Amino acid sequence: MTHDAGAVREVAVRARTASHDLALAIRATKDAALLAMARALLDATSSILAANAEDVARAEEAGTPVNIIDRLRLDDDRLASMAAGLRDVAGLPDPVGEVVRGSVLANGLELRQLRVPFGVVAMIYEARPNVTADAAGICLKSGNAVLLRGSSSARSSNAAIVAALRSALVASGLPQDAVQLVPGDSHESVRALMRARGLVDVLIPRGGAGLIRSVIEEASVPVIETGVGNCHVYVDASADLDQALAIVVNAKTHRTSVCNAAESLLVHAAVAVDFLPRVIEALQEQDVTVHGDERFSSYDGVVRATDDDFRTEYLSLDISAAVVHDVEAAIEHIRTYSSGHSDAIVARDQVTIRRFVAAVDSAAVLVNASTRFTDGGEFGFGAEIGISTQKLHARGPMGLQEMTSTKYVVVGDGHIR
Amino acid sequence: MTHDAGAVREVAVRARTASHDLALAIRATKDAALLAMARALLDATSSILAANAEDVARAEEAGTPVNIIDRLRLDDDRLASMAAGLRDVAGLPDPVGEVVRGSVLANGLELRQLRVPFGVVAMIYEARPNVTADAAGICLKSGNAVLLRGSSSARSSNAAIVAALRSALVASGLPQDAVQLVPGDSHESVRALMRARGLVDVLIPRGGAGLIRSVIEEASVPVIETGVGNCHVYVDASADLDQALAIVVNAKTHRTSVCNAAESLLVHAAVAVDFLPRVIEALQEQDVTVHGDERFSSYDGVVRATDDDFRTEYLSLDISAAVVHDVEAAIEHIRTYSSGHSDAIVARDQVTIRRFVAAVDSAAVLVNASTRFTDGGEFGFGAEIGISTQKLHARGPMGLQEMTSTKYVVVGDGHIR
Repeated sequence: MTHDAGAVREVAVRARTASHDLALAIRATKDAALLAMARALLDATSSILAANAEDVARAEEAGTPVNIIDRLRLDDDRLASMAAGLRDVAGLPDPVGEVVRGSVLANGLELRQLRVPFGVVAMIYEARPNVTADAAGICLKSGNAVLLRGSSSARSSNAAIVAALRSALVASGLPQDAVQLVPGDSHESVRALMRARGLVDVLIPRGGAGLIRSVIEEASVPVIETGVGNCHVYVDASADLDQALAIVVNAKTHRTSVCNAAESLLVHAAVAVDFLPRVIEALQEQDVTVHGDERFSSYDGVVRATDDDFRTEYLSLDISAAVVHDVEAAIEHIRTYSSGHSDAIVARDQVTIRRFVAAVDSAAVLVNASTRFTDGGEFGFGAEIGISTQKLHARGPMGLQEMTSTKYVVVGDGHIR
Repeated sequence: MTHDAGAVREVAVRARTASHDLALAIRATKDAALLAMARALLDATSSILAANAEDVARAEEAGTPVNIIDRLRLDDDRLASMAAGLRDVAGLPDPVGEVVRGSVLANGLELRQLRVPFGVVAMIYEARPNVTADAAGICLKSGNAVLLRGSSSARSSNAAIVAALRSALVASGLPQDAVQLVPGDSHESVRALMRARGLVDVLIPRGGAGLIRSVIEEASVPVIETGVGNCHVYVDASADLDQALAIVVNAKTHRTSVCNAAESLLVHAAVAVDFLPRVIEALQEQDVTVHGDERFSSYDGVVRATDDDFRTEYLSLDISAAVVHDVEAAIEHIRTYSSGHSDAIVARDQVTIRRFVAAVDSAAVLVNASTRFTDGGEFGFGAEIGISTQKLHARGPMGLQEMTSTKYVVVGDGHIR
């Protein structure tokens, strides 16, 4: 075992031990700890911002793009919002102990299925240091010890944030090792985390498609895939075209760097003559480059799309676009190219809507609404650790409930078979 | 790509296509198909039993142990019970379309979370050909296309069973490719199945610890681990010792080859003098070999246990046994050695029971009841595809609900952010 792999194992063993106590902590204790963590973050403002300045300086020296540096940068406002996030989580109900189902069996055995923490959750994530506090808060509330592996570009910020959070844990009587950074900057240490069977119960990668792919390829611990969104908006022949225009522009331009932004537009042939010039103009007004099929690219400024364009999650002011013959062709296109995150239809015809909703197999199917609504906050979950695009365990925005497993408790009085 | 890998890909693509239609099939259609499948099995009795005789002859020639051959062998009774199983599944409610949660958000968006099929489920399983029909029935009812990979020792039986089931599907208007055998006998074909990302949504291995380990090591598709059970019975100082005796004997000897059989006995030191001679005698009367710690092995016929014994899922007339100082030591022992399947306490003291139930993190924790009750049938699920020992998605016995994912449907009238 390399040095880094050994160090990762060590923190994972400590996390496992901490998880035993944390799993049994009552809500009052956890909420007090979350409030203390929020205060500790604010109390440590100067040291966290100093550490963050180091990270930013390093990134600038390395010629990191401005938008990445913006995501890395912390200030008083961002720290305040991290602290507010922890207080919000304290206000949410405790998922642990919830009875999911229960009954008395024919033989008198009492059966209950209860929510329990996973145990140890590992997070691998990129750039944004606010994820460090968010993930620590959600994991703590759901009774899970967390192993945090942020990007090396944020290492000073993450270390300062975690130091503050851990100091608050001690004061609250919860095990410090419930929140830990994964040591080491090497791929070896990431790999050790991905293969720590028996020590890591669930691994959640949060970042670009490359990170997710490499985790799926290498991990032997259970994984929840998140956040790759090649999201579609289909404008049907029956659509209210004013609504359709507003939804397309909102889904594409409201925020471009997020997984629930639209990346592809499909338009029913029957409304193409009316809708194409309007939507192309509206998108171009917002500086969006349209990568269109033959029909679309007959308009000024539209770039001819390749098959690759339809597969691409741009995360930028670009959108792929095609005309389709009917809803069946739209469904077929989405089956071929969608990442299964969020796909929307704009339509008034009930039969068409029913068909689209039934046939499109994505985490969220939206009807006459922007794809941007697929979000734990918008769904009212109060906190979100990511958006799952896999079908196992959790699909769509993940809140506190999704951070739990269950167990059965079976009570008898000497029952045998 | 090897020939086998190519052939596996081909059936997986056909399963994916079939899954699109099957996902939209209504309950009445699926139930009619299940009843037709039951009839088809019985109609094909002679060809299935002839095929099974080939498998049994091959196994006998190869010197396969008698108990394995017994699991392989089919007869009229076993076929009748396979058919009855399919009819039972037809009688169960359809999980697909169930609204798991739903609300109207503050902005008027209607939010519903619905159960949907996974899509394509792959099963890798050993010996018993009845699993072929059981898995096909449960997958069909839950709207999933299934790829079945039984052991090569049962290949003729499985082919005959699947041929019968597929003929029934055609007559019911459902796609034949909803039920398929995975072609090829090589490890290459198993490996292709384990790595068919985008084609296989969930892989469920059902078999011995070796199979499960190799799947976890090699699979890149999502996996649900099943059925490794190193189950414990802890007899507390406060136990009713008559009850304890009956539970230990039942949990160990009722059926030895199943994952919910007890493999390890822990006894509180305060009752050791009374209980040890009684339990050892009762077990030995049933031909159980006791592999005991120092205390146990001071009795006649008890073999001295090694650390390996406490890690072993015997699946035979053997049990490991140790005396512990208190419930904390029992919990610690279970944390170290349990596979997290089913662990039981026999006790009357409420504080001790509460502590054991909270601290033991297994799929099922049983109080004054035999570990043998951890079972989909006993829990009233009506059908069971396996018992999950992982924490992601499903934990414990898996019925129809556990064979589904969910999706969100979000309905607005032009909502944008």
